[in-house]
Amino acid sequence: MAQRRTRILSEMTWPEVREAIERGAGVFLPVGSTEQHGYHLPLATDVILPTELALAVADELDFLVAPPVAYGYRSRPLSGGGQGFVGTISLQARTLMSLVEDVLSELIRQGFERIAVVNWHFENQNFVYEAACLALERHRGSSARILVAEHPFAELSEATMKTLFPEGFPGWDYEHASIMETSLMLHLRPELVLFDRAVDDASKRHPWYDVLPVPEDFVPASGTLWKATQASEEKGRITWEEIVAQFREAVVTELAGTGSPEAVRHER
Amino acid sequence: MAQRRTRILSEMTWPEVREAIERGAGVFLPVGSTEQHGYHLPLATDVILPTELALAVADELDFLVAPPVAYGYRSRPLSGGGQGFVGTISLQARTLMSLVEDVLSELIRQGFERIAVVNWHFENQNFVYEAACLALERHRGSSARILVAEHPFAELSEATMKTLFPEGFPGWDYEHASIMETSLMLHLRPELVLFDRAVDDASKRHPWYDVLPVPEDFVPASGTLWKATQASEEKGRITWEEIVAQFREAVVTELAGTGSPEAVRHER
Amino acid sequence: MAQRRTRILSEMTWPEVREAIERGAGVFLPVGSTEQHGYHLPLATDVILPTELALAVADELDFLVAPPVAYGYRSRPLSGGGQGFVGTISLQARTLMSLVEDVLSELIRQGFERIAVVNWHFENQNFVYEAACLALERHRGSSARILVAEHPFAELSEATMKTLFPEGFPGWDYEHASIMETSLMLHLRPELVLFDRAVDDASKRHPWYDVLPVPEDFVPASGTLWKATQASEEKGRITWEEIVAQFREAVVTELAGTGSPEAVRHER
Amino acid sequence: MAQRRTRILSEMTWPEVREAIERGAGVFLPVGSTEQHGYHLPLATDVILPTELALAVADELDFLVAPPVAYGYRSRPLSGGGQGFVGTISLQARTLMSLVEDVLSELIRQGFERIAVVNWHFENQNFVYEAACLALERHRGSSARILVAEHPFAELSEATMKTLFPEGFPGWDYEHASIMETSLMLHLRPELVLFDRAVDDASKRHPWYDVLPVPEDFVPASGTLWKATQASEEKGRITWEEIVAQFREAVVTELAGTGSPEAVRHER
Amino acid sequence: MAQRRTRILSEMTWPEVREAIERGAGVFLPVGSTEQHGYHLPLATDVILPTELALAVADELDFLVAPPVAYGYRSRPLSGGGQGFVGTISLQARTLMSLVEDVLSELIRQGFERIAVVNWHFENQNFVYEAACLALERHRGSSARILVAEHPFAELSEATMKTLFPEGFPGWDYEHASIMETSLMLHLRPELVLFDRAVDDASKRHPWYDVLPVPEDFVPASGTLWKATQASEEKGRITWEEIVAQFREAVVTELAGTGSPEAVRHER
Amino acid sequence: MAQRRTRILSEMTWPEVREAIERGAGVFLPVGSTEQHGYHLPLATDVILPTELALAVADELDFLVAPPVAYGYRSRPLSGGGQGFVGTISLQARTLMSLVEDVLSELIRQGFERIAVVNWHFENQNFVYEAACLALERHRGSSARILVAEHPFAELSEATMKTLFPEGFPGWDYEHASIMETSLMLHLRPELVLFDRAVDDASKRHPWYDVLPVPEDFVPASGTLWKATQASEEKGRITWEEIVAQFREAVVTELAGTGSPEAVRHER
Repeated sequence: MAQRRTRILSEMTWPEVREAIERGAGVFLPVGSTEQHGYHLPLATDVILPTELALAVADELDFLVAPPVAYGYRSRPLSGGGQGFVGTISLQARTLMSLVEDVLSELIRQGFERIAVVNWHFENQNFVYEAACLALERHRGSSARILVAEHPFAELSEATMKTLFPEGFPGWDYEHASIMETSLMLHLRPELVLFDRAVDDASKRHPWYDVLPVPEDFVPASGTLWKATQASEEKGRITWEEIVAQFREAVVTELAGTGSPEAVRHER
Repeated sequence: MAQRRTRILSEMTWPEVREAIERGAGVFLPVGSTEQHGYHLPLATDVILPTELALAVADELDFLVAPPVAYGYRSRPLSGGGQGFVGTISLQARTLMSLVEDVLSELIRQGFERIAVVNWHFENQNFVYEAACLALERHRGSSARILVAEHPFAELSEATMKTLFPEGFPGWDYEHASIMETSLMLHLRPELVLFDRAVDDASKRHPWYDVLPVPEDFVPASGTLWKATQASEEKGRITWEEIVAQFREAVVTELAGTGSPEAVRHER
Repeated sequence: MAQRRTRILSEMTWPEVREAIERGAGVFLPVGSTEQHGYHLPLATDVILPTELALAVADELDFLVAPPVAYGYRSRPLSGGGQGFVGTISLQARTLMSLVEDVLSELIRQGFERIAVVNWHFENQNFVYEAACLALERHRGSSARILVAEHPFAELSEATMKTLFPEGFPGWDYEHASIMETSLMLHLRPELVLFDRAVDDASKRHPWYDVLPVPEDFVPASGTLWKATQASEEKGRITWEEIVAQFREAVVTELAGTGSPEAVRHER
Repeated sequence: MAQRRTRILSEMTWPEVREAIERGAGVFLPVGSTEQHGYHLPLATDVILPTELALAVADELDFLVAPPVAYGYRSRPLSGGGQGFVGTISLQARTLMSLVEDVLSELIRQGFERIAVVNWHFENQNFVYEAACLALERHRGSSARILVAEHPFAELSEATMKTLFPEGFPGWDYEHASIMETSLMLHLRPELVLFDRAVDDASKRHPWYDVLPVPEDFVPASGTLWKATQASEEKGRITWEEIVAQFREAVVTELAGTGSPEAVRHER
Repeated sequence: MAQRRTRILSEMTWPEVREAIERGAGVFLPVGSTEQHGYHLPLATDVILPTELALAVADELDFLVAPPVAYGYRSRPLSGGGQGFVGTISLQARTLMSLVEDVLSELIRQGFERIAVVNWHFENQNFVYEAACLALERHRGSSARILVAEHPFAELSEATMKTLFPEGFPGWDYEHASIMETSLMLHLRPELVLFDRAVDDASKRHPWYDVLPVPEDFVPASGTLWKATQASEEKGRITWEEIVAQFREAVVTELAGTGSPEAVRHER
Repeated sequence: MAQRRTRILSEMTWPEVREAIERGAGVFLPVGSTEQHGYHLPLATDVILPTELALAVADELDFLVAPPVAYGYRSRPLSGGGQGFVGTISLQARTLMSLVEDVLSELIRQGFERIAVVNWHFENQNFVYEAACLALERHRGSSARILVAEHPFAELSEATMKTLFPEGFPGWDYEHASIMETSLMLHLRPELVLFDRAVDDASKRHPWYDVLPVPEDFVPASGTLWKATQASEEKGRITWEEIVAQFREAVVTELAGTGSPEAVRHER
């Protein structure tokens, strides 16, 4: 039978949340998208990965995980395949910002002081930052701090990069439904990966600018922007460990708990 | 190991969604809240119930279930205990409406024509309706239809009402974290119910109007607005079967599938 | 010749309002709609009734009556006949909320501390509540209190209900341009009732959910949702007295005046 | 007993409005403010005057009069005394524009093609124009025309100007609760004028620019910006006749009825 | 070679701005439009003139000049020729207000206390005022003052008016790309005036109200609303000196510097 | 004497713009910011560079240059030093998006079909893209195309990168008021560079995430994020030529003129 998970805010009761806040617990807000991820990955890939990242360090650092933001900013052709794929369900920028602003504002209002936005969807960049700014402006004088992690995968070590991209790194914008994301999903949620359908693909053109309406040759037919077949569970495991370690380090450094400072300091 | 669920849009790949749309499948959008539900029910109660309701008929009626809207309009004291409880994380009305409008608009844009908003959170009333109106206004000329189910529990049979409320029905606004919701959760997700902590409670006053700022005696200390201890798995099962049947009937009647009209007609 | 009415804010001069605020007077904001009310009732029915209700207790409780909000949220088919009737002129939800928020905010800004929103239009529910919340958020630290009366007719005594609905009560959503509203108008503003045109009517279907675009059979041709011919001035008088008494009680209980607490206490 | 007025939309039934639209009737939307008008004029002065203007020509030109917009843009010190007077209840610009836009849009939606915005409040200028633009943009392809009359008093004949201002015309911005408005109210609604309280007043300074926060010496203590004691019913009558004639001429010229073009042409 | 201008904020470095704020310098925000100005004047006319006005007194009064707002509210037919001319690029009212509000708010946030909005575009009236109100509301308790100059040309002396308009003054709404503006541009930026293309023009009708959609005969073909050929550099010089003097007087009177009060007092 | 520049839309007359549109000319919209750029560069650096880029190819490709958007999204600490520097005047995200959306929408409305947004300010990313999407949604069916160039400097050749960054490339987020921007300004607008004040600087920490409120050690005291003293006019010239060539190539490829396709093809 399923288990109740006591780090997941939505499964907790309110007195449990009260107790958490009183002891100084923090809270993670995963932000993702509902977006095509090729023939083989689920639409929720960008929701699953930041949620897993939050859960990976929640116990150790005493954080709760708020309900993820499951819809993100519109998919851009050169980093997500664009809005032309069925299954991609996106928000307007104003809506996404208001949503994240409201949720962060509520978290501050009820007493959370250690907050991290854990984003995975490339296109949410800047919007989640603005939302965090606006939420803090609503609560001037609060002692809340917000860590905004827009690209938790952005600074992998050279070793890991070589493991992931032995043929060379094309740039993070290509990394959509490709080697890294597929590897991570194979490691974390293999039951959601239809790996036999994975393909290597690329758009005919991938320029440094965008064009609207979107030229057809900016978008690969599969929605996979690069090579997915080179993914493996092993690559996923190695990468994930590094991502988790970096994220843990960031949280420990910036959001040292008020409740247990020693433990946190030890962590460094 | 966990299973991939092929009715849950977020776990599907985009070609699977394309195939579903092409065969005329519909889509459910569950809308809930993150809101205190007494000492014993999880904050996600209003998300879990409409999602389960959508899933209960999804296969039979050929619907997908879109990612639920996990945050709802602010809790009102007389129907949800109000914003004073830690763990209640709410959206401003404008944000909620934009969010639901954008998601519905995207569903229409990609070709879904049979759409149902399945709401459970009492306070979302009118806001989800407005969102559906606005989404259709964005897509004038579309042949999409939207069923807006704001209170899927509102018309239970007399027999079921007596089973649920042998001592008399106080009104649906009291039914928050109380007999019905607790019974349904015991039936559907018992692992998330801390039934030994359930209490019977009531606010000292429960007038026909609201007052802001909220008078303290409008809100019971537990957040349970009525009697939770009288809940049972059996009551939940009976009620659930009726709710599911009524919802199925509504969907069949209003959103008859284009792909398989015979099957649908048979259903009536 | 017409008389100047000294409880109606719009007919007063500013020094008179200043004096009223200084002595601790309160203020009512009636909120209604411009909406079809069958063949026999005027479009302003939902504006007239809350304004009359406010006036009915204004002298006794020392309240002014602010200019009513004459346009409301869009008519819903199952409680107002929907937007399809000529003469129904509605606001988008965002507009209505901003309007009521601004007016309430201005009332607070100039020193009113006892404020009541007196709504009659069913569909304004939640929107006027949100507006009151937002107005108070703009004035944190103010000592203003706002009573939000969304359904001043919602808790009639059993005796009155039997008088009004001898054949049984269909539910308040049906009570549009029907027995109660027609009776109240016959009592209060008979010159505006074309009673010989009143009909009994009903939509072919009246389900527990909405559908958009609106199915034709959800809406009765006349715009009267139930039986109007059973209305009478006498029924109106009895019902009105009860509604006034309940509203007076609510105001006295929640918005006890600062200027004359004894009088108020005596009232209880 | 009061009479039902068949030009006032709010007092009509929906079939009466339908008939009016079908025969090509137009509609006026009066827009005003709730704003101090000195010691002697009611707060509704800017609502009463455009409504009376609309009614003055409604029969002859076959127009209905929609419920007036009773709240306007914030009072400016140099043309209305500013926001510092109790009783002045104003909207933010965004709210006013949305309100007027929504109402105009609804009038167009239901088939009115001859529409006039009749504004009196000086400060509503530009906002009502923008609202009319936005409403028409929502209904591209409609054949509705909107006449926007922001200052129906702006082009009086030299003779009338001399009658009104024998000592010289200070400029329309001064004409707030002063000679013209007081005279018009004495003519149209004498029961609402406390003429014995009228004063002549002026701010110490009345520069060509504004300053925020408002310097005290920009605002006269009474709220009357110029000379009110020189008003008379006779001046009001003369001025009113001219205003009505000019307004009639404008409507006839720009909104010639589709139903009875001959009658309209005859009018010129 | 071009020179760096030390009064123009955009050409300064941040330490220079810091020093200016510390010594109590003020800041001007010119607001204009990108709008047709007849056959002979550049689209930026309404940007150039307020910027030149600001620069004309900046040194003497110790003000910086912020980057001008180059886009304004939509051109109205009777004061700017309307939106039908190519080259006229306008903002919606909401956008313009947000833009000016944000910029003013930022100026206050960083410590400017003497601020003037210098507008030239007729149609920006009220919108820039609202923006200034909203900016100050965001900074309650700040000691910033904002002078809002909507029509810096509005109160010329009789002598200058006669010089400019020897045949009579038609009203400021006509003064678009006509005598005054052309003269000023000939004086200030002759290289941008194609004076040989200037024409005298007028719409067939120029009523006291607006109509939407715009009747063709409200708009002159050239976009010049009155007589441009009567302009001269000499008229421009005389007018400009008076405008500058009046503006200087306004700033000195209302925004006396905190850093050098003596100098300012001397100025009076 | 200054010259009238016939590629700069703001200096043109409306008939000149009409002629340009009729022959198929395109239009560039430069978007920048008013933001600190160290001790030595002007606040307008991010406005000057995209405007110069637009002008560099305007003649050859037959484009006009619209008035630049001079205010951008709020400066972020790790790519612009953040909002803490005096002189940085930023817009909220909603305002920036509305502004760019309105301007693009107007350009489309009047017939431009070849449009490019030329952005330089790092933080405007995604916001200008959303604005372009929204503008096109307002003009469904139009044949306008919009090229969105968010980072015109992002893909320099290896040779140029080595010339610019002989000690290694720190990443574009560091490149604020540093080697590249200083070199470009020395090349293009040397009179605005106070090169003797240029410094090499760096924040103590420059992590892969953001924190709000901003930790002090994320921001270097000078506002220069990296090494400015290594800049030179020569580096600027080399880099600029490459940037111009890449931008020209992009425009030619994506926005081939309708008026002279051969010329454009020859250009490749």
